[in-house]
Amino acid sequence: MVLLLAVKAITEENREFLSKYDINVVTPDTITEEQIPEVLISYAWDNELGQKILANPKSKLKWIQAQSAGVDYLPLQKLQERNITVTNASGLKAVPISQTVLGYILYFARGLNVYTTRHHWEPFTNQYLMSELPVLVFGTGHIGQQIAQAVKALGGIVYGVNTSGRPVPGFDAIYPIFDYQEALAKAQVVVDGLPGTKDTENFFDEHFFQQFNQLFLFINIGRGTTLNQEHLLAAIDDSRVKYAALDVTTPEPLPKNHPLFERPQILLTQHTSWGEQKNAGRMGGLFRLFEKNVPSFMFNGTFVQNVVNLSKGY
Amino acid sequence: MVLLLAVKAITEENREFLSKYDINVVTPDTITEEQIPEVLISYAWDNELGQKILANPKSKLKWIQAQSAGVDYLPLQKLQERNITVTNASGLKAVPISQTVLGYILYFARGLNVYTTRHHWEPFTNQYLMSELPVLVFGTGHIGQQIAQAVKALGGIVYGVNTSGRPVPGFDAIYPIFDYQEALAKAQVVVDGLPGTKDTENFFDEHFFQQFNQLFLFINIGRGTTLNQEHLLAAIDDSRVKYAALDVTTPEPLPKNHPLFERPQILLTQHTSWGEQKNAGRMGGLFRLFEKNVPSFMFNGTFVQNVVNLSKGY
Repeated sequence: MVLLLAVKAITEENREFLSKYDINVVTPDTITEEQIPEVLISYAWDNELGQKILANPKSKLKWIQAQSAGVDYLPLQKLQERNITVTNASGLKAVPISQTVLGYILYFARGLNVYTTRHHWEPFTNQYLMSELPVLVFGTGHIGQQIAQAVKALGGIVYGVNTSGRPVPGFDAIYPIFDYQEALAKAQVVVDGLPGTKDTENFFDEHFFQQFNQLFLFINIGRGTTLNQEHLLAAIDDSRVKYAALDVTTPEPLPKNHPLFERPQILLTQHTSWGEQKNAGRMGGLFRLFEKNVPSFMFNGTFVQNVVNLSKGY
Repeated sequence: MVLLLAVKAITEENREFLSKYDINVVTPDTITEEQIPEVLISYAWDNELGQKILANPKSKLKWIQAQSAGVDYLPLQKLQERNITVTNASGLKAVPISQTVLGYILYFARGLNVYTTRHHWEPFTNQYLMSELPVLVFGTGHIGQQIAQAVKALGGIVYGVNTSGRPVPGFDAIYPIFDYQEALAKAQVVVDGLPGTKDTENFFDEHFFQQFNQLFLFINIGRGTTLNQEHLLAAIDDSRVKYAALDVTTPEPLPKNHPLFERPQILLTQHTSWGEQKNAGRMGGLFRLFEKNVPSFMFNGTFVQNVVNLSKGY
């Protein structure tokens, strides 16, 4: 009998599934001091309780199922030293996020942004087709691939950027992150889908925005830390970037009267691009992803999917 | 040598193409009284000049290439009596219009409508996936088919309604216009893509809106006359219809302070859903469609595409 700490809600059906593998569920509310070192799996992460578990010399913790695609908030180095595996929620919200991204593009491309505030008759006809706005996606994981699929389905052109330039199906071409300029020169829409790591911090800065005369749309659905917001605001103000749509920001929540709220060219969706009805909530559907790793983990401590490379941080 | 009246602009390249078929071009500015009865083809329609041509007993007019998909503004009965063929511009703007329709759906589905006016941090998480909003399209021609393709590509469900219920590829199911209630009961989005005819006038009225408790989104990209706007406003005001996106209205332009401008639930795009960069303008690309019929028409008076059924009006 082993223990799973359910930081996020688990249904009765989920408990039945776990009981088949002799996994008992405790919650942050019910866990006792004696149970702290017995926790083998943390289902989602509670920082305070998690640190307490890690501080216990007898801790049996072996697996953390993160509640998100990005895991930059976890003590990755410490977990690596302890040989604890982290699985992330990558892919969980790829479909809803890709649909929000397509919504952003069509919102500006089809001139809907003009009409949302126009309360008199004054037709606007400077629209774009998807095929007229080539898209460059930084990050070619689940979310990037889902975006590529949606863009291609509407007749668009989509390039991808990843660490090595390794091919990924669904993109018209892939470029390595050290040599993406040829693709950027062709792109009208840039999607920041980078994970939050030391390497990606402030990747989209003044230097990046100075590489082109005008970009139609900059999108951030990666991590707030990957974008220098001051530099984006400057690029918006001198029209090098015409529009921006940001799902993630620094900080979250943004304080009242933050300049990002004040620019009509910027659409902010307040970290909710993952929304859907069925698997409601930011972690909705997490268990379906988690349960796929349970059989092999309980059998011989291995995983079939979503394992984070703790050195790289994603 | 025959005459073509170019109501809409024709390029030098277009003139060269026509000259191969011994077709001479006149324009409304340069046409002489003697040339009026000699006009064989009207490229687009100017009502004043057109009526003058039709009134001339010696008129040779045989073909009108309409500048739009809908032809309700033409004197259809008179044209039928005179055995004059009308070809329409159906298909010309199907791709841009379908992308605006997808933009409408994602705008409301992904909660972008909430964020366009929210200038403080207050996350909204009641979003929908495309798959959670089944779409019912009235009208299964070029535009309807293009919409179906876009919806399916994003994992959605799409039903079509046409006169007879005849199958059309790309839809999950097709229903006849006299028996569409089963599909309506399953739909969350209704797209009005009906042509403007006597049969379709006020089709979407009180009676239609009373058939359901709540519809997520009503879209009109057909003709303003097919919708009773007063009844839509009433349905919006009592929440039977949550949102509406209208490209066409009655009248156009809408007068200042018209109630359609005043409802935050309604997005108006002022008959510009056809916008694109390459074939700019509402008639952009018309000649490419027109020229396909020229060889057979000049050879033996037949047409290969886009012939309007003058009895039906579309």
